Amino acid sequence: MRDLRHLPPEEARMRIRERKHTTPTTGISIDYAQANLVVLNKEAAYDFLLFCTRNPKPCPLLDVTEAGSPVPMLTAPGADLRTDIPKYNLYRHGKLIEQTEDITSYWQDDLVAFLLGCSFTFEKSLLENDIPVRQIELNRNVPMYKTNIPCRPAGRFSGPMVVSMRPIPSRQVAKAVTVTSRYPSVHGTPIHIGNPALIGITDLDKPDYGDAVPLYEGEVPVFWACGVTPQAVAAASEADFMITHAPGHMFITDVKDQQLSLF
Amino acid sequence: MRDLRHLPPEEARMRIRERKHTTPTTGISIDYAQANLVVLNKEAAYDFLLFCTRNPKPCPLLDVTEAGSPVPMLTAPGADLRTDIPKYNLYRHGKLIEQTEDITSYWQDDLVAFLLGCSFTFEKSLLENDIPVRQIELNRNVPMYKTNIPCRPAGRFSGPMVVSMRPIPSRQVAKAVTVTSRYPSVHGTPIHIGNPALIGITDLDKPDYGDAVPLYEGEVPVFWACGVTPQAVAAASEADFMITHAPGHMFITDVKDQQLSLF
Repeated sequence: MRDLRHLPPEEARMRIRERKHTTPTTGISIDYAQANLVVLNKEAAYDFLLFCTRNPKPCPLLDVTEAGSPVPMLTAPGADLRTDIPKYNLYRHGKLIEQTEDITSYWQDDLVAFLLGCSFTFEKSLLENDIPVRQIELNRNVPMYKTNIPCRPAGRFSGPMVVSMRPIPSRQVAKAVTVTSRYPSVHGTPIHIGNPALIGITDLDKPDYGDAVPLYEGEVPVFWACGVTPQAVAAASEADFMITHAPGHMFITDVKDQQLSLF
Repeated sequence: MRDLRHLPPEEARMRIRERKHTTPTTGISIDYAQANLVVLNKEAAYDFLLFCTRNPKPCPLLDVTEAGSPVPMLTAPGADLRTDIPKYNLYRHGKLIEQTEDITSYWQDDLVAFLLGCSFTFEKSLLENDIPVRQIELNRNVPMYKTNIPCRPAGRFSGPMVVSMRPIPSRQVAKAVTVTSRYPSVHGTPIHIGNPALIGITDLDKPDYGDAVPLYEGEVPVFWACGVTPQAVAAASEADFMITHAPGHMFITDVKDQQLSLF
């Protein structure tokens, strides 16, 4: 099998467009930032843009397309957001109504696509610092949980923050904080460290999205704000129409992770 | 004279509201973040919000009010943005038409106020690191210049980046970079270090806004993106209607500078 970890992003996107790759994108083109997708009508876009600026940890904006254009000019000018993601979720009135591998037939002239930073970006830095990333070791999707932390509302959008969890050996937790502090545009430092119950998570073995992973002896669960948050928000806010990526099935940009690092 | 440097922000705003203070706000309530103001019609607010997210170094958003409300709920819930700034600029079709100390009579139900981070915030950190801040030493407004660096356009908004300049002793330039890197939400690291001509500045003694300051032997001019940029953008884009703070006459928030520091 070809090593997907060092595939140039345009080749990775072409494989996805041609449906040669239809699974989660963890571990593909690992030097490049992956992004969460949210597509809304122009009419709802102002509220969402405001929601993102008020909630930068779960919703760090990397790119926003012109209304009607599926091309992310800042982060991947050769891409097409209608075909270059392995799997999409379609919502109407807050309900997931369909999963699809291509949204071309749903595209309209008044749609605006938002790309949001993804925690995959800092995972390479964690690995380079010898901090384990459990779901990569196990070839699973990262576990994600709804919390009891409310996002700051904006217009029609409100709802709880979603977090991703990684088990970190206790002696390496401080290092995991400083490593991720370099990446404020991809969720930055953890939202919570330690007791899941304090943020409303009752059972780590039952994530709301993604796959559960084991917590080994001496490890602490560390929680980062997650770009899946807009999906929870869509459900809570009953947005008329919204398209997102399916959890773990991200958009691969032309932006190197290092470009998103502060220093 | 009472020491304004440690005035609580609500007292500083009250002095301003009562017109006891009508001059630039440098050096007032120095532990608290000051902000640039931009007020626009709701109809133009989406383009401006997008402009800010595409140009975070000159336009780092700290707060955005609900349409019609002059209260910045996140950064100073007890304040009134119509009266709590010492001086405002009013623009119509990109032209400065009036300076005023109160915008209450211009306020309308569809106005949205944006507060943007200001370089005053990191100046305290520079001083604490024994890096001189010339315009504070001389009790002047910081010199600001239009550059040849284009902002990324968004809808009707486009135009050149405006920068502020501080002369830094050459051996301290690297320290000035690392100190300001901690504050990405208030312009962060410099945009340019050294030769002003490379960014289109022909004469440091003739700033476009603020006051000139001398460059001493062994000092390097260091340029940071400046929140006055929206004013240059308003002029270049001929926005129908816009209110901003007058340069140097900022809004003083309840947010401590340290809260804006990454670490």
